[in-house]
Amino acid sequence: MPAGDGADPRELDDLITQDAGDDIFSFAARIFPICRSIAGDGVRKTLDEIKSHIALDIHEIPSGTQVFDWTAPREWNIRDAYIKNADGAKVVDFARSNLHVMSYSVPVRTRLALAELKRHIHTLPEQPDLIPYRTSYYAEDWAFCMAHREFERLRDESYEVVIDSRLEDGFLTYGEYLHEGESDDEFLLSAHVCHPSLANDNCSGIALLTHLARRMVGLKTRYSYRFLFAPGTIGAIAWLAHNETRASSIKHGLVVSMVGDRGGPTYKKSRRGDAVIDRAVTHVLRHSGLTPKIEDFSPYGYDERQFCSPGFNLPVGLFQRSKYGSIPQYHTSADDLSFIKPDHLLESYSAIVKTIDIVETDGIYLNAAPKCEPQLGKRGLYGSIGGKRDAAMQTMAILWVLNFSDGAHGLLDIAQRSDLPFAVIRQAAHALQAHGLLVRAEPAIAAAPSSAGDVAL
Amino acid sequence: MPAGDGADPRELDDLITQDAGDDIFSFAARIFPICRSIAGDGVRKTLDEIKSHIALDIHEIPSGTQVFDWTAPREWNIRDAYIKNADGAKVVDFARSNLHVMSYSVPVRTRLALAELKRHIHTLPEQPDLIPYRTSYYAEDWAFCMAHREFERLRDESYEVVIDSRLEDGFLTYGEYLHEGESDDEFLLSAHVCHPSLANDNCSGIALLTHLARRMVGLKTRYSYRFLFAPGTIGAIAWLAHNETRASSIKHGLVVSMVGDRGGPTYKKSRRGDAVIDRAVTHVLRHSGLTPKIEDFSPYGYDERQFCSPGFNLPVGLFQRSKYGSIPQYHTSADDLSFIKPDHLLESYSAIVKTIDIVETDGIYLNAAPKCEPQLGKRGLYGSIGGKRDAAMQTMAILWVLNFSDGAHGLLDIAQRSDLPFAVIRQAAHALQAHGLLVRAEPAIAAAPSSAGDVAL
Amino acid sequence: MPAGDGADPRELDDLITQDAGDDIFSFAARIFPICRSIAGDGVRKTLDEIKSHIALDIHEIPSGTQVFDWTAPREWNIRDAYIKNADGAKVVDFARSNLHVMSYSVPVRTRLALAELKRHIHTLPEQPDLIPYRTSYYAEDWAFCMAHREFERLRDESYEVVIDSRLEDGFLTYGEYLHEGESDDEFLLSAHVCHPSLANDNCSGIALLTHLARRMVGLKTRYSYRFLFAPGTIGAIAWLAHNETRASSIKHGLVVSMVGDRGGPTYKKSRRGDAVIDRAVTHVLRHSGLTPKIEDFSPYGYDERQFCSPGFNLPVGLFQRSKYGSIPQYHTSADDLSFIKPDHLLESYSAIVKTIDIVETDGIYLNAAPKCEPQLGKRGLYGSIGGKRDAAMQTMAILWVLNFSDGAHGLLDIAQRSDLPFAVIRQAAHALQAHGLLVRAEPAIAAAPSSAGDVAL
Repeated sequence: MPAGDGADPRELDDLITQDAGDDIFSFAARIFPICRSIAGDGVRKTLDEIKSHIALDIHEIPSGTQVFDWTAPREWNIRDAYIKNADGAKVVDFARSNLHVMSYSVPVRTRLALAELKRHIHTLPEQPDLIPYRTSYYAEDWAFCMAHREFERLRDESYEVVIDSRLEDGFLTYGEYLHEGESDDEFLLSAHVCHPSLANDNCSGIALLTHLARRMVGLKTRYSYRFLFAPGTIGAIAWLAHNETRASSIKHGLVVSMVGDRGGPTYKKSRRGDAVIDRAVTHVLRHSGLTPKIEDFSPYGYDERQFCSPGFNLPVGLFQRSKYGSIPQYHTSADDLSFIKPDHLLESYSAIVKTIDIVETDGIYLNAAPKCEPQLGKRGLYGSIGGKRDAAMQTMAILWVLNFSDGAHGLLDIAQRSDLPFAVIRQAAHALQAHGLLVRAEPAIAAAPSSAGDVAL
Repeated sequence: MPAGDGADPRELDDLITQDAGDDIFSFAARIFPICRSIAGDGVRKTLDEIKSHIALDIHEIPSGTQVFDWTAPREWNIRDAYIKNADGAKVVDFARSNLHVMSYSVPVRTRLALAELKRHIHTLPEQPDLIPYRTSYYAEDWAFCMAHREFERLRDESYEVVIDSRLEDGFLTYGEYLHEGESDDEFLLSAHVCHPSLANDNCSGIALLTHLARRMVGLKTRYSYRFLFAPGTIGAIAWLAHNETRASSIKHGLVVSMVGDRGGPTYKKSRRGDAVIDRAVTHVLRHSGLTPKIEDFSPYGYDERQFCSPGFNLPVGLFQRSKYGSIPQYHTSADDLSFIKPDHLLESYSAIVKTIDIVETDGIYLNAAPKCEPQLGKRGLYGSIGGKRDAAMQTMAILWVLNFSDGAHGLLDIAQRSDLPFAVIRQAAHALQAHGLLVRAEPAIAAAPSSAGDVAL
Repeated sequence: MPAGDGADPRELDDLITQDAGDDIFSFAARIFPICRSIAGDGVRKTLDEIKSHIALDIHEIPSGTQVFDWTAPREWNIRDAYIKNADGAKVVDFARSNLHVMSYSVPVRTRLALAELKRHIHTLPEQPDLIPYRTSYYAEDWAFCMAHREFERLRDESYEVVIDSRLEDGFLTYGEYLHEGESDDEFLLSAHVCHPSLANDNCSGIALLTHLARRMVGLKTRYSYRFLFAPGTIGAIAWLAHNETRASSIKHGLVVSMVGDRGGPTYKKSRRGDAVIDRAVTHVLRHSGLTPKIEDFSPYGYDERQFCSPGFNLPVGLFQRSKYGSIPQYHTSADDLSFIKPDHLLESYSAIVKTIDIVETDGIYLNAAPKCEPQLGKRGLYGSIGGKRDAAMQTMAILWVLNFSDGAHGLLDIAQRSDLPFAVIRQAAHALQAHGLLVRAEPAIAAAPSSAGDVAL
């Protein structure tokens, strides 16, 4: 079903509504309490919540399955955990915060002297009021995490220690959802779903992508959009292992995490460095009114590590607000729902929608009258008299599009070179196209039918 | 007639004399009062003045002639215009300033109440003492322009309004002059001749190029130099339309406008960005002692817009002092003869002559003894003892020329890389050539006879 | 004898010992008093001193021999020189400082009035306590050099002037030493030996290279290392003239001079600008903890001028502390043994050894499991728990090596891109290689036998 049948790619703009921030926040808040880890019921419950919004396909990979160099882990499920002092009072209680138990802690039911117990407690001495977030996926161990200030108040006595967890064969679970476009070429949007009650990292990313997927339903697009909700590292690796040939269809991609705080935005480029996704996000952020940080690829971070491993080298970047590890709230109990705001979620969401909008509508046009400028005035293409700023910008955009639509420059190229917003450049192109001064040179997707003429003013 | 017959390309230096600034100013002052527009007697009178200095070819293109996407306009000629108040006093008088009438105003002879009249008056409220410069070439309209302070003093009464203009079929007029060099390859120098009494924009450019053309008479050059005096936009388009094949002979070019104020200099690169003209002007300005601004090409400005349209993409840049639109005097009555100075005209002229000098004499030389340095001392090529600054610079220039005359670098390349003035590098090359240590590798113009040996110290 | 037979290229690290600075200083002090010039016994004595440490080959080229554009000079030897005043007191005495006599001064034995004598005296009026260093190799002349303060105290009387020198046919002398490696490809290390009692320029360079050559004895290397001790300019030219074909075997090279002061370090890149030597030295200095200055090539300086002449264009850079000519001590009596320090010599020496270490061990490896990251934890390749800084850096290095070992990037490339020290990157590569996650793709020297497997952790 080609977009030409009445579809308007600019409907993407319509996805950006003022209530989007609240809606994303609301879903983040809903999934916040779930005790997620890399495999187990926490992931399942989270995917079920997503599935209540979009038609998510849920995949279950048996523990022990080989995925590249890795093995699908056992499931970890936990019912309760606490430390009771000699008086029988719970000095640490999993029911109060699931961060209190190191993820993948083996079951424990014992009584320990303080000295011994301390060897199993993580704290943050420099942030004494915060509970750290810790994991031990692949080394069998157990531990509690607690505020250093409370840790210091522990009396030298005997403690009852209980972790009522199970670590047993089951499944590694991930979900994916495909928004089908004209082309089989894909835009990947990926969020990790393995962190417990951390709001920004990554309830925010899960909620943003869920909202986006839901809003895109019915929208005709050139690309197909694959939404992947998978546990960090092992989930992305499992997906790649099971989709090794499909991966080459990914023409653009974003890993989305920590999108609700006030920082950044931070964009880490794909390993390629100059992929369309890198140029598109950079352009959007440059015109966002925010103070973006654009960073080169490095092989540490989130699942872009896997998508950008040299055997795949996919054009997938990382979109965040504050960069992972750069803020005191990172991987602590301070990353709670008060740390993310609807406004910041809306800004992040808008930037991602605008990026998609660029990728969808970028293309090369040809100046149909390349010798000298055409006479814009007789076509009403000059800005209205009086010199309004917008009119002047539109006139500049028209001149830029005419001058650089030489077969070597697409709209995004022209937007970058002119430093004008892509939307203004695209609007100029459409105006010129409507007057026969510009023709679409080629579709942006080689395999797709020509979309010349899809877009009318 | 090859330059080898006694010609010395360095005679170009001789064109820079202290009186050049006064001479250019003087001619700018002479043509300042003429009421120019894009077609009509104003242009003709201006071209006649130029023709009194150089053998200008004047071309007349009938109104209505199609030139690419445009049509040669009707002529606009004006005898008088005024607004008289109820007392019969002229509150606006074309005889006092031709800026008072919007260019291409249709004839008017009527009586209007103030309210109605005001809809036909342009002012600059933020610069209340200045008359704006306005045009309406392609929309039939009429208007007066006046100082806002005077506009505010207009009494609420009835006014007699007269514009004694004619808008009728005639000719679009432009002039060109060719200084013939050894080669048919051309250096284009272009000034717009369509603005009324604005001194900097562009009496200054017209006068500078007229002076240059006159001074170049008799000078043997490698390139041919085409001087084009044409109305902005439509004139350049008409020239290109009538010289579509010849355009490819243009190897270098400058649009010259607003060259008499104290600003800049400003150089806007050609669309190519790294053409010889771009590198030569940049180099000259970098060593000018002034505070130049080098800007990338953008498709807004003067006639470089046409020369750099994608169907031509000629290596033509824009040379100015202050950039168009960047100063309060721009397109107002403050752009009068007091705004331009002989000193600034001389600086602009010198920069253009030095640019031509580079283009004329740039070339690739080959180190005849490329293994190790030759012994300079035994040839007297080391600077005099005592370490004078000039001698040290000359020694450095000799070492740079020797080291980089490897077949891949021309003199301008070496001047850029060493950050030494081109003239110093060239002098070093000539000294080395005279001692047989350097040979001319190839002519700068492929079609021209080899000029190796043209230049002796 | 391939390096695989038990050799460990990292033994290069072992060459850096704390006593190296003292040892280099000590040898510099030993050769400091010798009155060197470009040909004569001063050079011979210096080479003999070097030969007492390494098996130097000494070459003697007869005066008058043509070497490219130059001619081997006569020898200059001097026994004594002085100026006696009317009282018979020596007001200038060669025995006190060999800087007092301009190098290559012809013999003189005369009596002169002060006015006449002054025409043969060089001083530094702005540094009145220092004796300048002056030469006149190719113009027959004589002169004394003295402190300006003493010069001003000379009474107006008659002086006895004696320079007991001989300028006669003999030999131009230079020494070279070859440390043979697996390959005939060479790393050139060159120091000039023509300056008299100047400690930094270049007793420091001579001593550093002598120490290095001695320490490398017995070390198995991939490259052969050619140490050249030759008079500046004429010596390098003579070597190149006699080794014209061998020069192409030089794959990397450093000219080493002024390496004992506290400045810089300063590295002037080879003419190529992006040679391995340029990238290696830049990388080492960037991680040296010092404040390096990296400069582009210019054709003025030391013997890199000859090695980088366009007919050779060898990848040879210049390593210094303060740049020649940039400090007040340069070419004056203030460049004495108090101006150089063992600590600075050690820093310079370390940087050069580390550079050699990079060149020796750089190479391209291939990620053996390029799809997704391999599981580092199960192999013990993750840093120890607790987040030690070194462990974190090692983990990052492992990730960088895995991600960029794609066949297009060598270890030095990865070190530059990650901004991690080469040694850390190399250690990561060896660790990965030991675990079968990385394989050596190709030897760094095409002609050499594969060195894959040479290096075990």
